[in-house]
Amino acid sequence: MRDGMNYRILLDSAKSCILASSVPRRQQFLIRCVGGSIDHRHRDMQALRSLEVDSQTVIRAITPALDPTRHKGQAGNIAVIGGCREYTGAPYFAAISALKIGADLSHVFCTKDAAPVIKSYSPELIVHPVLEESYNVGEEHKSSIASKVLAEVDKWLERFDCLVVGPGLGRDPFLLDCVSEIMRHARRSNIPIVIDGDGLFLVTNNLELVSGYALAVLTPNVNEYKRLVQKVLSSEVNDIDAPQQLLSLAKQIGGVTILSKGNSDLISDGDTVKSVSVYGSPRRCGGQGDILSGSVAVFLSWARQHILAADSNSNLSCKNPIVLGCIAGSAILRKAASLAFSNKKRSTVTGDIIECLGRSLEDISPAC
Amino acid sequence: MRDGMNYRILLDSAKSCILASSVPRRQQFLIRCVGGSIDHRHRDMQALRSLEVDSQTVIRAITPALDPTRHKGQAGNIAVIGGCREYTGAPYFAAISALKIGADLSHVFCTKDAAPVIKSYSPELIVHPVLEESYNVGEEHKSSIASKVLAEVDKWLERFDCLVVGPGLGRDPFLLDCVSEIMRHARRSNIPIVIDGDGLFLVTNNLELVSGYALAVLTPNVNEYKRLVQKVLSSEVNDIDAPQQLLSLAKQIGGVTILSKGNSDLISDGDTVKSVSVYGSPRRCGGQGDILSGSVAVFLSWARQHILAADSNSNLSCKNPIVLGCIAGSAILRKAASLAFSNKKRSTVTGDIIECLGRSLEDISPAC
Repeated sequence: MRDGMNYRILLDSAKSCILASSVPRRQQFLIRCVGGSIDHRHRDMQALRSLEVDSQTVIRAITPALDPTRHKGQAGNIAVIGGCREYTGAPYFAAISALKIGADLSHVFCTKDAAPVIKSYSPELIVHPVLEESYNVGEEHKSSIASKVLAEVDKWLERFDCLVVGPGLGRDPFLLDCVSEIMRHARRSNIPIVIDGDGLFLVTNNLELVSGYALAVLTPNVNEYKRLVQKVLSSEVNDIDAPQQLLSLAKQIGGVTILSKGNSDLISDGDTVKSVSVYGSPRRCGGQGDILSGSVAVFLSWARQHILAADSNSNLSCKNPIVLGCIAGSAILRKAASLAFSNKKRSTVTGDIIECLGRSLEDISPAC
Repeated sequence: MRDGMNYRILLDSAKSCILASSVPRRQQFLIRCVGGSIDHRHRDMQALRSLEVDSQTVIRAITPALDPTRHKGQAGNIAVIGGCREYTGAPYFAAISALKIGADLSHVFCTKDAAPVIKSYSPELIVHPVLEESYNVGEEHKSSIASKVLAEVDKWLERFDCLVVGPGLGRDPFLLDCVSEIMRHARRSNIPIVIDGDGLFLVTNNLELVSGYALAVLTPNVNEYKRLVQKVLSSEVNDIDAPQQLLSLAKQIGGVTILSKGNSDLISDGDTVKSVSVYGSPRRCGGQGDILSGSVAVFLSWARQHILAADSNSNLSCKNPIVLGCIAGSAILRKAASLAFSNKKRSTVTGDIIECLGRSLEDISPAC
């Protein structure tokens, strides 16, 4: 599986061979009927193949050397904003994934209800019980409590290399108002923000939070992408020319980077489009998106250091560290999911994939 | 053990051999005294053997192929209604078993007290702290709180492929009233319901909740079955002709499916009776019924998809997906229990059996 293409690409390659040969028109018609608009899919996959990026080269380039002279925090200090009364697994998955990729410190900012549970999952995380939901806050106290929440987060903000906003955030209006303000503060401090899950719900309805911010990453799944396209482009998702539509979408939001998750992951910053299709697993257990958001946060922090240090000498064709981080995060998740699946098969759960993150990275970029 | 018969069948076969030979009448009398009504048991086991189903064929037929084009949720989205101040293990076992069999998403709806504990067992589950018990609710607020509980569950209901009602539910009257209403809503939406534990206490006293609902499964143990027989058939359990009595019981409740747990599991929908006797473990640690309920929920969801897709072309002699799900769930639990016991012997606990669910399914129906 390591260097293989996924099934869909193989299938489409086979179909394209059939179509390219001199089969009679009637047979071509039948093939199209059976496969469903194969001509379109063929064109689509051709386009994707030309966009496929060498993710291993990217990972090797941006992963920092481990050097005994470095200090705690230099390999990454990440914060996840998420976790409420209803959801606690998602922020844990995102935060622990950051550590397992190689970040030195991983924080979670969540509600008071969620904190003891997230703390109980692992002593490795630093969990701050600072967010509040409406049910716990009287109308007359909202303003003062919001200020207090902001002050608590502000104390830490400058230390973080990247925020992940959204895993298990929920949709409580008061909580989302506070998180909007946290995002504005992070933006003012030029801290990159990866936005997933309920963070995408917030951003889709408040595009100004990220519009024009080149250090923002949106990581929508199929349904979240659909809502984003409808909101921003006032149109439906175009599967035939997905790369072009993604490019337009990223450009329209002012050059944010979008990682559109699917059978192939597509990544665009409004300037370029890249595809990551390698590895993967057919298991679709919930929580894999959380691993991705935590991984992207670490890799984009490393990529920023790499681009800064290499100045214009990086051998990578793409110089946007945010795009590079997305490529690396996507590829490592796919490889880890593939490793976990080869062992646990249908019973693979998200925790099993997280346990394979380290080996996946080590196979590509050995620590020493 | 994989293709073997269980100990009881072997014992009965041996006894029948003795009886069939020309031993003097006095010795036959002694054997009967020692073994207890051997003639009857012999007849009973003969009948059971003729009902024994090829569970491996059923499992292979209904387990869906893993396909990279499928999305999160398509392999199953299950919800367990259970978990109160007193019980938290049972709903966890049911919900995590669903994931380990291969469902994509597994939820628990429990009381506010139980939620943090169930969450802390595993970040893989989505745990909703929405149910309330009487001690926490003033008489004057019962109506409004019941409406709120229902509204919370209704937000999610249509997404679920199956509900499991009962593991660790407790017997608080107010909580059971709310759960009755949840069951009525699920029934209106044609969502299958597996009923176990305290859910059976509720249903035995309120038969109208499931009567005539072909998408309901009851999974009673020996004592729960006894109460059900007394209530519905106004008689005692008949061990001599257990299959016929089970058939009558299922028919009497209007075609619900009953999985009567015992040395052999007997399954009937009022139309047919099947027996699952293979594999198994002599260890009777608490919690195995919870594994069964979560497993049946996933398998019956898969069986519904299979029967729908196969139309009338399924090779299976039984076309009721609810019965097929019970057969598969029963067989997989038995195989997992056998695997766990071969390793852990007397110290086998329910978690050990859950860890063997994946291998049990993989041995019968490899993922790819």
